[in-house]
Amino acid sequence: METLKNYINGKWEVSKEQSTTDVVNPATQEVMAKVPYGAKTAEDLAKAVEAAQKAFQSWGQMPVMKRVQPLYKLKQLLEDNLEDLAKTITMECGKTLAESRGELQRAIENVEVACGMPVMIQSEFSENIAGGIDEFMIRQPLGVCGCISPFNFPGMIPFWFLPYAIATGNTFVLKPSEKVPLTMQKVFQLIDQLDLPEGVVSLVHGGKETVDAMLDHPQVKAISFVGSSKVAKYIYSRGAANGKRVQAQGGAKNPIVILPDADIEISTQIIADSTFGCAGQRCLAASNIVTVGDKNGTIKESLYESAKKRTTGYGLDEKIEMGPVINQASLKRISTLIDQGVDEGGKVLLDGRNAKISGFEKGNFISPTIIENLPLGGEIVKTEIFGPVISLIELNSIDEALEFVNSNAYGNMACIFTSSGANARKFRSQANAGNIGINIGVAAPMAQFPFSGWNESFFGDLHGQGRHGVEFFTQTKIVVERWPKEWSRKF
Amino acid sequence: METLKNYINGKWEVSKEQSTTDVVNPATQEVMAKVPYGAKTAEDLAKAVEAAQKAFQSWGQMPVMKRVQPLYKLKQLLEDNLEDLAKTITMECGKTLAESRGELQRAIENVEVACGMPVMIQSEFSENIAGGIDEFMIRQPLGVCGCISPFNFPGMIPFWFLPYAIATGNTFVLKPSEKVPLTMQKVFQLIDQLDLPEGVVSLVHGGKETVDAMLDHPQVKAISFVGSSKVAKYIYSRGAANGKRVQAQGGAKNPIVILPDADIEISTQIIADSTFGCAGQRCLAASNIVTVGDKNGTIKESLYESAKKRTTGYGLDEKIEMGPVINQASLKRISTLIDQGVDEGGKVLLDGRNAKISGFEKGNFISPTIIENLPLGGEIVKTEIFGPVISLIELNSIDEALEFVNSNAYGNMACIFTSSGANARKFRSQANAGNIGINIGVAAPMAQFPFSGWNESFFGDLHGQGRHGVEFFTQTKIVVERWPKEWSRKF
Amino acid sequence: METLKNYINGKWEVSKEQSTTDVVNPATQEVMAKVPYGAKTAEDLAKAVEAAQKAFQSWGQMPVMKRVQPLYKLKQLLEDNLEDLAKTITMECGKTLAESRGELQRAIENVEVACGMPVMIQSEFSENIAGGIDEFMIRQPLGVCGCISPFNFPGMIPFWFLPYAIATGNTFVLKPSEKVPLTMQKVFQLIDQLDLPEGVVSLVHGGKETVDAMLDHPQVKAISFVGSSKVAKYIYSRGAANGKRVQAQGGAKNPIVILPDADIEISTQIIADSTFGCAGQRCLAASNIVTVGDKNGTIKESLYESAKKRTTGYGLDEKIEMGPVINQASLKRISTLIDQGVDEGGKVLLDGRNAKISGFEKGNFISPTIIENLPLGGEIVKTEIFGPVISLIELNSIDEALEFVNSNAYGNMACIFTSSGANARKFRSQANAGNIGINIGVAAPMAQFPFSGWNESFFGDLHGQGRHGVEFFTQTKIVVERWPKEWSRKF
Amino acid sequence: METLKNYINGKWEVSKEQSTTDVVNPATQEVMAKVPYGAKTAEDLAKAVEAAQKAFQSWGQMPVMKRVQPLYKLKQLLEDNLEDLAKTITMECGKTLAESRGELQRAIENVEVACGMPVMIQSEFSENIAGGIDEFMIRQPLGVCGCISPFNFPGMIPFWFLPYAIATGNTFVLKPSEKVPLTMQKVFQLIDQLDLPEGVVSLVHGGKETVDAMLDHPQVKAISFVGSSKVAKYIYSRGAANGKRVQAQGGAKNPIVILPDADIEISTQIIADSTFGCAGQRCLAASNIVTVGDKNGTIKESLYESAKKRTTGYGLDEKIEMGPVINQASLKRISTLIDQGVDEGGKVLLDGRNAKISGFEKGNFISPTIIENLPLGGEIVKTEIFGPVISLIELNSIDEALEFVNSNAYGNMACIFTSSGANARKFRSQANAGNIGINIGVAAPMAQFPFSGWNESFFGDLHGQGRHGVEFFTQTKIVVERWPKEWSRKF
Repeated sequence: METLKNYINGKWEVSKEQSTTDVVNPATQEVMAKVPYGAKTAEDLAKAVEAAQKAFQSWGQMPVMKRVQPLYKLKQLLEDNLEDLAKTITMECGKTLAESRGELQRAIENVEVACGMPVMIQSEFSENIAGGIDEFMIRQPLGVCGCISPFNFPGMIPFWFLPYAIATGNTFVLKPSEKVPLTMQKVFQLIDQLDLPEGVVSLVHGGKETVDAMLDHPQVKAISFVGSSKVAKYIYSRGAANGKRVQAQGGAKNPIVILPDADIEISTQIIADSTFGCAGQRCLAASNIVTVGDKNGTIKESLYESAKKRTTGYGLDEKIEMGPVINQASLKRISTLIDQGVDEGGKVLLDGRNAKISGFEKGNFISPTIIENLPLGGEIVKTEIFGPVISLIELNSIDEALEFVNSNAYGNMACIFTSSGANARKFRSQANAGNIGINIGVAAPMAQFPFSGWNESFFGDLHGQGRHGVEFFTQTKIVVERWPKEWSRKF
Repeated sequence: METLKNYINGKWEVSKEQSTTDVVNPATQEVMAKVPYGAKTAEDLAKAVEAAQKAFQSWGQMPVMKRVQPLYKLKQLLEDNLEDLAKTITMECGKTLAESRGELQRAIENVEVACGMPVMIQSEFSENIAGGIDEFMIRQPLGVCGCISPFNFPGMIPFWFLPYAIATGNTFVLKPSEKVPLTMQKVFQLIDQLDLPEGVVSLVHGGKETVDAMLDHPQVKAISFVGSSKVAKYIYSRGAANGKRVQAQGGAKNPIVILPDADIEISTQIIADSTFGCAGQRCLAASNIVTVGDKNGTIKESLYESAKKRTTGYGLDEKIEMGPVINQASLKRISTLIDQGVDEGGKVLLDGRNAKISGFEKGNFISPTIIENLPLGGEIVKTEIFGPVISLIELNSIDEALEFVNSNAYGNMACIFTSSGANARKFRSQANAGNIGINIGVAAPMAQFPFSGWNESFFGDLHGQGRHGVEFFTQTKIVVERWPKEWSRKF
Repeated sequence: METLKNYINGKWEVSKEQSTTDVVNPATQEVMAKVPYGAKTAEDLAKAVEAAQKAFQSWGQMPVMKRVQPLYKLKQLLEDNLEDLAKTITMECGKTLAESRGELQRAIENVEVACGMPVMIQSEFSENIAGGIDEFMIRQPLGVCGCISPFNFPGMIPFWFLPYAIATGNTFVLKPSEKVPLTMQKVFQLIDQLDLPEGVVSLVHGGKETVDAMLDHPQVKAISFVGSSKVAKYIYSRGAANGKRVQAQGGAKNPIVILPDADIEISTQIIADSTFGCAGQRCLAASNIVTVGDKNGTIKESLYESAKKRTTGYGLDEKIEMGPVINQASLKRISTLIDQGVDEGGKVLLDGRNAKISGFEKGNFISPTIIENLPLGGEIVKTEIFGPVISLIELNSIDEALEFVNSNAYGNMACIFTSSGANARKFRSQANAGNIGINIGVAAPMAQFPFSGWNESFFGDLHGQGRHGVEFFTQTKIVVERWPKEWSRKF
Repeated sequence: METLKNYINGKWEVSKEQSTTDVVNPATQEVMAKVPYGAKTAEDLAKAVEAAQKAFQSWGQMPVMKRVQPLYKLKQLLEDNLEDLAKTITMECGKTLAESRGELQRAIENVEVACGMPVMIQSEFSENIAGGIDEFMIRQPLGVCGCISPFNFPGMIPFWFLPYAIATGNTFVLKPSEKVPLTMQKVFQLIDQLDLPEGVVSLVHGGKETVDAMLDHPQVKAISFVGSSKVAKYIYSRGAANGKRVQAQGGAKNPIVILPDADIEISTQIIADSTFGCAGQRCLAASNIVTVGDKNGTIKESLYESAKKRTTGYGLDEKIEMGPVINQASLKRISTLIDQGVDEGGKVLLDGRNAKISGFEKGNFISPTIIENLPLGGEIVKTEIFGPVISLIELNSIDEALEFVNSNAYGNMACIFTSSGANARKFRSQANAGNIGINIGVAAPMAQFPFSGWNESFFGDLHGQGRHGVEFFTQTKIVVERWPKEWSRKF
């Protein structure tokens, strides 16, 4: 069984740490690889930072039009290897092939946007801001930037940061989730083919010790994190205590509101995709489905039918519509939360527990599950489940729905389905979340817009993607320049 | 003796706290007022936040073109009352009248820039980002924003934040320095004349307990701070641990490099203004003056002459060029640091200690002081003195100068005086500081540019002033909108 | 009877031209003033340009933060004199006082936006665009800019240009419509109170000869025009032949589409305001009202009622809802067009001709008029009437409506009334016009957005207002700067 | 001998016109191809426009992220075929291989910048611009855009426009110079490999009749032109008379000022490259070299030496430093202008006429030529020569130099060589030209900046490249949107 190597200073290196943890296929329980895991990964991290710091000296000085050239090639390589990468994602993370391809497409789009850095990095110039004085701004890179990415989008999330960080002249150290390190392992084999100086990007495997080492290393200037809210707050807090800039994205409990004037059939299909896509393991998964005025239960019925017919199984099979959750612990936690929902008064309308997938009996499978009648003040409508479980909530007006939406401690996403321009506008203006969908099930911002979590879904101020990426990964330098007239030399 | 009231919810209110501390004129030691100071100021703060939170509900919904109207009037009022305000600054803070007027001018410029918010708050729209889908961003306000301002610019620093915060739709609670609360007391009498809803801006007096109450209050969404680096880091750390966005500006130890190809006479005059302006009590004061290749000591001589003839005294006298430092503790600390410099091997070329100002014998006066021969590895060339004390350092090349500049733990400012375009460019590109001056003694960014401290001079990522102000005081909301063609209703 | 003076080089001057034309109150036929009109106004124009060219030498060099100061004061003066100016507009132009106030408010908003010029004029800077080379852009002013404004918005339209032109450092010569010169005469009395150097703004009265002199003067670098499409094209063509940059806005024939799912009562009230506001004499007046699926005639009925009860009369009376058209020639032309509509098969549903306004029998009054049954291929649905005349057109679907809208040769505005998000989106995306209203009757862009006429409604590329104003009134200067390392001088 | 085909609607087509003109290798006089030339090319043009208009219907609707995909591939194809294309440029246009590669690199950079269109095309959104009203801007494409490109940069200049035009959703018809059609012929063979719908880009050969057909065709909405000033003005004038938007770049007579404090050796080498590069046939060629204070003639001497040793010959030979001029007519015109210079009093310091290039005796060769003593008021210092001819002008101060620079009717470029920051700043601020070089010989803006000709060097307002390209090729559409609260439907 292979133990994964780190990619440091342009070379694949064995970790200093000999302890490992297993990378397990969630559909088959097959151990796919072993990944270094323990205190000595901190030494790996330190070595990667050292190389990154060294590389920064010249990389930060290279003209930006040259720095983006490897990104053009990276786009090509990602496209050329998309199927292979998608398969790896599916195997280590569980999602379907279509979903894996989709997240890679999003990754590529971030590479594309970062190719535009020569324009995006332009800063401001003002002539003659006072008599004979010019003032302007330069955007300079920070130095070594660190990234800690989660298990649910092994192929996409590092790309919310990496392309922007390096295009702006920083160097970059990535610690992927120890649960799904193989996708980035493959991506770094592609990166290895780029014309990038040694040390500009590095990959270091590990767990909490690696993370803490990154948070505490004085040469790491910025931290980008995606994970649970609890850890996000920890990252923000510890990174800040060390004086770093931090962007830390957390979890969510996303509501979708559906009004009767929406096209119910289309809408419920979209909503089912949103809820059960990636087996509910995404920070933009909808999990509270609010129906308004669904007096005849039409919407509920439609959602039920849509959920029921969704095929669960091993994602490598193209016909499969939903894969397993990441591991047994997660499966158990989801099950417990459903029980707790029932204890709170919930009624399980559709029960996906004990899903038996022929040939994959050991897989971490749970089929689409719908609970209704949950109390609004209870725990389950507030708790992130991170599995294919819908809370179905009936309310009587858009105002009640907004009140419910805004009682949420998180703020990643809120969506509405309606044909009414007025209702849509009211919702988009008042919903207390950073990514709003109008007749959209997964309101994931395109790469040119910031992925705008709010409240407990995000700690910091500058998000991933787009212009926020440029701002986060550069520091502004103001130059106030006077060339006194008297100094104009005569000859 | 008057005990200052708070301005909360549009009214002047007596503090809950009965303990006070004195506001003392640093030139005369006259007690000018008493300011609430103690644990119960936390209750005042809570009340102000409550009012601010309430005001936010409607203020945040008001069209931005209406929200800026009071700022136009505020500009007018500040201009009309400039002399009175300047006098107050001089009396409580010590600086000269010219300096007080100057800082008020900078305050007004920030009000002006924030008047442009209807343009600055515009966000991005993309039609048809995918088939039939539009995507756009809205900038919405955060809620209640808190500000903690320092003693050295009582009239200016609150305006790095206040105009941007309220123009973007937030409400704002200011805690001024308890050493210099009178300027803002007067400013809020002007603010009281504006057509601003109750609770949009509040003024709460106090000390550390007030600060902590602000840092811990869950409804305060953002903190703007200016002060020492030690406190700035504390603010950033504690604010972040509470999940807030924070911009915390700290201290500095700013170098100026002077090359022999500069016009020495003009340059040394400018440098003296930079060093001794505000008695050295500003985060952009130059305190390490590096001469390069000054073989004949011409620059040194010129600096010495310029420093020597500077008149120290009570700032209300228009002829005075430098006022006292803020208090006796500060005076003593500066004196101790000079002693320490001598212990390190420094030679006091010009000794401003024991300055006797006729008629103001009790004032906290120290005249311009120059130390030379300090070891580059010693403490004094690294320590912020915050008084009118120059370290004079001789080096042999611009490369040595840059190495010295970049060994600084801070990064507020670095300036160079030269007639050479090549040297200037090299310096501005490589100096590790956020505000660079080329033949400029105080590289203070105009209001439309961010005040860009680096390293230990700043914690966070978005600075005060200009576009950074807009970004800091708004949260981005992304809307992904689809109106399916099929939903285009027929009639 | 007063003959109006020009305002040239900071002084009120008698024109070289002795011939005059009358300024006539359209409600009373009272001659209010005489205005110079003839070939020798070209000499006035030349003199104003000469002064402007001279003033440009120093005005263009003044820091932008100083150049905007007079605009802050101008805002204040316009607000303080708003009632007097509104009355003047009503008296010379005919519209109601409410309408006059409204257009002045729009004027003031443009002054406000131009106050933000220190931010808006910032240009781009890129460090190290190639090894050691920096590149940046400066926005510099053009020189003398000329403006020719129409009769229908005497108080607003000059402000689409003037504040941007002078804030960016140009000097400005305005020729107002000879029909309504009094409003600008009063505005220039306010401008005279500003702290503006002589020659920065000038006012020259006259007619076609004045216009041609402006178009042909080699020192006039840019022309801003608003008027009929025929003249706009002439202006664009002749200005371009003389090498100038030109923005020339023309006429329109604006459609409003109303779907049955709109709130009919509210909508028809808004539409009536749009159609009959300013007696239909505005480039954003709606004149083709398209009903879709109005099978029971509800919309038609509602429009009829709304039109019928509109009170026509002298605008100085606050109760009056619609004033006269500009002159007898216009009145006659409108009447002839209605006749022509009848000849084409149109049926006059509501006939406003021969309106008798007690006490103002000589006024150029025509009451709201509605024609239906006009052939879509006829002349009247295509011809700008510039009077309070609706063509009422019944169609069967939004697609038919869009086809009709896009058959229009103009492209100033297209509006839709609907509650359907899908229909609104389709319309806004596909309607071939530059200003789109969704449930808005007069889709006039706010000052921070360009007034975006399309097709025959606009000639040029950069419109009035907002960022387009900045781009139009500045020329970009690119600086490519290298300071070879070897030139870094040693000492 | 091949007669070139047009590329229309995705296919190579024989022209309707049977008359042709020869494409001649300027070094060998070999006829390389025949190109359609005559009145019937107007029919070809009309056909291309028709196809483009049809293609526009769907291309303009395609999401921008999809529209840029072919540009990524185009970048790759241009890089892969760079040598072949460079050779073609050299053969038909005469410049050296290094120069040909250089211009292709610039072409590729424009493709890269246009790949960033998803960000660049974003427009502005403002929520709640008035109570409950949102306002935003959409950038929509214009339709069919036409381009007329000159002989001197056959590979680069079409790319100042094409990538921006199509990335923004327009369709594009290119008429290359009939003197150098082969480069674009090859480029379109690459374009043919892209996944672009038929009709999106077309290539139509021809001469003046083709141009006029483009200028007059009602479906062509915008014209981009580069050529002589005389023709540029004609294009602007005729295009405007037809109501189109036009950007028309003309000729130049570019000055370089050299001060004695520059490094003379480096500077003169750069200046020689600027002057003699492309045999002086570029709109950024320097032709008036102004020395200031060159009392000992050091600069003059150095320039003379640098010019003298430059090797003239057939560009395909890698050792050759300068190629021939475009044709015999041009050669003769240059010779005549030199004679005229002598008549004016000029002294030919270095005479490149009658250059004999062994093996290429028929080529249009003229070696580097330097004339001195030309009168400043004469014709030759004002006339664009478009050949390798320097006027050497001695002046006494930078003020005199600026006066001379600003007496120029053109305004493409002005450069200065100096080590003085003050002189450089004065020059860049005051020189009346749109592209300024500081110690740069050819101040060509990078692709992300507009190529900013001024005065007679440019007609219009929006230039080629960068953000100006986006603005020129899109029309702004403002949407004012209200969704009345009352319309929020209840259920």
